[in-house]
Amino acid sequence: MNTLKKQLTELSKLKTDTYGKDFLLTWEKSDADIRALTLVAECLSELHAARKPFRVFDTGLAISIFRDNSTRTRFSFTSAANALGLGLADLDEEKSQIAHGETVRETANMISFMAEVIGIRDDMYLGEGNKYMREVSAAVQEGFEKGVLHQRPNIINLQCDIDHPTQAMADLVHLKQHFGSLENLRGKKIAMSWAYSPSYGKPLSVPQGIIGLMTRFGMNVTLAHPEGYGLIPDVVELAGKNAKKSGGSFQVVNSMEESFRDADVVYPKSWAAYSVMQRRTPLLQKGDRDGLKALEKECLANNARFKNWECDAKKMKLTKHGKALYMHCLPADISGVSCAEGEVAADVFEQYRIATYREASYKPFVIAAMILMARVKNVAATLNNFAKD
Amino acid sequence: MNTLKKQLTELSKLKTDTYGKDFLLTWEKSDADIRALTLVAECLSELHAARKPFRVFDTGLAISIFRDNSTRTRFSFTSAANALGLGLADLDEEKSQIAHGETVRETANMISFMAEVIGIRDDMYLGEGNKYMREVSAAVQEGFEKGVLHQRPNIINLQCDIDHPTQAMADLVHLKQHFGSLENLRGKKIAMSWAYSPSYGKPLSVPQGIIGLMTRFGMNVTLAHPEGYGLIPDVVELAGKNAKKSGGSFQVVNSMEESFRDADVVYPKSWAAYSVMQRRTPLLQKGDRDGLKALEKECLANNARFKNWECDAKKMKLTKHGKALYMHCLPADISGVSCAEGEVAADVFEQYRIATYREASYKPFVIAAMILMARVKNVAATLNNFAKD
Amino acid sequence: MNTLKKQLTELSKLKTDTYGKDFLLTWEKSDADIRALTLVAECLSELHAARKPFRVFDTGLAISIFRDNSTRTRFSFTSAANALGLGLADLDEEKSQIAHGETVRETANMISFMAEVIGIRDDMYLGEGNKYMREVSAAVQEGFEKGVLHQRPNIINLQCDIDHPTQAMADLVHLKQHFGSLENLRGKKIAMSWAYSPSYGKPLSVPQGIIGLMTRFGMNVTLAHPEGYGLIPDVVELAGKNAKKSGGSFQVVNSMEESFRDADVVYPKSWAAYSVMQRRTPLLQKGDRDGLKALEKECLANNARFKNWECDAKKMKLTKHGKALYMHCLPADISGVSCAEGEVAADVFEQYRIATYREASYKPFVIAAMILMARVKNVAATLNNFAKD
Repeated sequence: MNTLKKQLTELSKLKTDTYGKDFLLTWEKSDADIRALTLVAECLSELHAARKPFRVFDTGLAISIFRDNSTRTRFSFTSAANALGLGLADLDEEKSQIAHGETVRETANMISFMAEVIGIRDDMYLGEGNKYMREVSAAVQEGFEKGVLHQRPNIINLQCDIDHPTQAMADLVHLKQHFGSLENLRGKKIAMSWAYSPSYGKPLSVPQGIIGLMTRFGMNVTLAHPEGYGLIPDVVELAGKNAKKSGGSFQVVNSMEESFRDADVVYPKSWAAYSVMQRRTPLLQKGDRDGLKALEKECLANNARFKNWECDAKKMKLTKHGKALYMHCLPADISGVSCAEGEVAADVFEQYRIATYREASYKPFVIAAMILMARVKNVAATLNNFAKD
Repeated sequence: MNTLKKQLTELSKLKTDTYGKDFLLTWEKSDADIRALTLVAECLSELHAARKPFRVFDTGLAISIFRDNSTRTRFSFTSAANALGLGLADLDEEKSQIAHGETVRETANMISFMAEVIGIRDDMYLGEGNKYMREVSAAVQEGFEKGVLHQRPNIINLQCDIDHPTQAMADLVHLKQHFGSLENLRGKKIAMSWAYSPSYGKPLSVPQGIIGLMTRFGMNVTLAHPEGYGLIPDVVELAGKNAKKSGGSFQVVNSMEESFRDADVVYPKSWAAYSVMQRRTPLLQKGDRDGLKALEKECLANNARFKNWECDAKKMKLTKHGKALYMHCLPADISGVSCAEGEVAADVFEQYRIATYREASYKPFVIAAMILMARVKNVAATLNNFAKD
Repeated sequence: MNTLKKQLTELSKLKTDTYGKDFLLTWEKSDADIRALTLVAECLSELHAARKPFRVFDTGLAISIFRDNSTRTRFSFTSAANALGLGLADLDEEKSQIAHGETVRETANMISFMAEVIGIRDDMYLGEGNKYMREVSAAVQEGFEKGVLHQRPNIINLQCDIDHPTQAMADLVHLKQHFGSLENLRGKKIAMSWAYSPSYGKPLSVPQGIIGLMTRFGMNVTLAHPEGYGLIPDVVELAGKNAKKSGGSFQVVNSMEESFRDADVVYPKSWAAYSVMQRRTPLLQKGDRDGLKALEKECLANNARFKNWECDAKKMKLTKHGKALYMHCLPADISGVSCAEGEVAADVFEQYRIATYREASYKPFVIAAMILMARVKNVAATLNNFAKD
């Protein structure tokens, strides 16, 4: 609990602005907010390890809307809600439907009468996911202002087309724990690299979340991908600006090896090219199965040209002392384990397997921290009370 | 909290008989019960607005059985259960199955060992929904009497073929709030009117619930529908009797315009004709797809003759000072928004949109009130304690 | 509460070893553990009957993994979790999928960050269900040892290919209640008999659970089935050993009548032959529909030769004073009610219907007792506190 005391002291000095606010993109949050979030997540994790419950709600609902399949994020959100005392209610929409306008506006209010928080995952359609979250947000804001809702629930982005803040924040806590502090991240090199996968169409939100967040802590961020596998240009531009501001660096290369060289951290992970996502979205919206099949075929053929983009022992040797921290959001495509050829060699993955589990273990606490900071005014005092009990 | 004090005083004077009782039809409940229910729902809503939790259960289950799709009622039931401290457990039956006899009897007991309340929605089959609820009710009664169940859960009708009491009661609270008191409803005209919809087969329970309940408060209730779109004759007869007893009036007309004339409230909403429902039920039971398709085609063609049954600005002008309160159970078929031609014109709906959300907002509190009044002996004292905290 | 006091005294004398342990097979548990489990389940049932809540967790999750459809066990697990204060989170896997290796290892950790208990039902595949549970168990053990999990959740077998411990234990409590004590079971004859059913492929876990458990209490256990309908040989052998050790007896006969003769208890229930299950598993794994259809046809034809294996009034007359206790795990195939010809005649079932409901009523308390004994150190003291309140 000594660490916890220090963390609470640090927390109480930060000027945050999270009360009553949604969490949609990490880059909409101040450095103080992000720093505080890592502290709160760490405190909650320590309380949990010490078997000290941190229930703040007597009753109340956490609503989840998963427009994609999800196991890990779903359980993290459920765990966080439960630990804070909230009941979970899942809005099970037809999966293919993209509703907008009155349907969203009305539904958002109908599910929110007793809601504290709404967690949304919507990462299938480029240009849609984050937009949908903002529609829900605007709808509950209107409902609250017009007296329909007694309280305005906050929206938490559980992965969209642009960012995956709960993942990126869990990754940041993992890095903080690994290197000892956020300050120690300064000057460390992280390689966010595309990797080969036998599937196609994986969302861009993880790599975008990583380059958008890690560039804020003075890290040297290298984004690596084959030509034509770029991310949303706006996010890439943002990463560059962040790096400049934080005193770190940001570069894009077309070689996994180059990105791995002297890296302290590697994050090899497959994604679909932005240009593919642009073509895919209208096909998905129209439900054009033949078009989707043709696109998939083309993309898989294209992917197959880059099977050497695998994180193997040889490439790991290029990293700092050959000992970079391997990261992954899970589940990884492991060559010879979950697929014939994939993102990572079996021996490399096995070496870091438990580390990737630990990386994931921060997510429930990050989500709980997001909820707590949005719904409770004096978070430091609240945490202090839980530590005492 | 001043209003709340007055309400509690009023509540404590009412001789109710709701403890340990199911809620299956509003017309099985005394005027005192109905009046008390509005008061309890209002108190709970006020407590919630004041952020005063009203958890009465430490543990216990609220079981839901939805034999139809539902979002709004599902979330209202979940919200109510959670606010009272109950966990939700959903019995996910095969949707097409109409089980009776031993299956119902046994299942009802198997899910009820720790249940406080069972909410059931079953509105697809004429002659089946309410009957099913009574089978479940009889089964848990037997289980309790024979010592299988330590306590007898109560059944709440979340919409059946005959009534939709949680909707009708939420609508009554909405009217009470809008006009200031139940007494003020006396002499007010409400038009419960059929409206055109591009879909067919919508349940009769909403209009039946409205004419069955609002006729008890001295309102002048006009039911309007095209010839051949009548409701269950027994319920129509009941509405007439209620009106006589309460000093109000009840009439059936075949013109939306006539029903709107001088109305204080309009409730334009589509439904399938009783005679259609009678033909549809055996087809659904047999799973006769061709028969259902043929019936749908015939009915849609018939509906199309009544596209002018739309609640538009011109018809709204016929109402009292052109300013009747527009009501709907949501979601509405809004012309040019959710369909090409529907129940209500877009400009009319937009004007009352927030009001319809508010109308819906009473439902979780109505359901919580139903549970509370069925499970707690001295409701007024219980509410008084929550208000103090 | 007098009974409860006596039970707690008895409980405190037993040397159990359940804290932090999984519950996978009754025969892995000591006699003291089993005896204690009946006492704890009875105490919880009495507390519940007296409306005394026994919530021990402030927050925390009970995870359920149902690889088969289930209503009764699902609700029992949900009820138990809720009564102890745990939230339920269901892992909804693709039903046909048998994942092993890294997928299981990783998923087990990803769902367990805040889990107290994981209930698993996996009874479709011979040689798979119990094995899967042990994989999950090993995975969370590793996660805990490596610091990924702050606490190690315990696994509860909610039915596998080998045993159905929550059912068998509920049945044992039922017998204890019926005959007055575990000691009174000594010398009582129980007939665990195969019975005809129009379906095929029912799991072996119930009869195996019964012969594996009841042979430990000095009962005379007779297993009856047509030739070729044997159970897993290892379990049959175990039953014989148990009987020898406990001073009871165990025999296998090929006649329902013979097993019923002078029986104090009869448990007529259909199951698929072990040899059929052996052939069925690879077909299921390969998704070989034609193969499965052919096997079903063959088995149904074979079953049809044994339609006289029905528990009817005539056979019941063979039992001790014609009044043996009829048991079933429900739902039973009742001739003329749930099927044309089935496991039990309608008049026999009706006579014991409520008794079978009561039998089932112990299951939530048995599961709650399993969780409590795995997660709380001094169970007797904990129960004593709840009794006081």
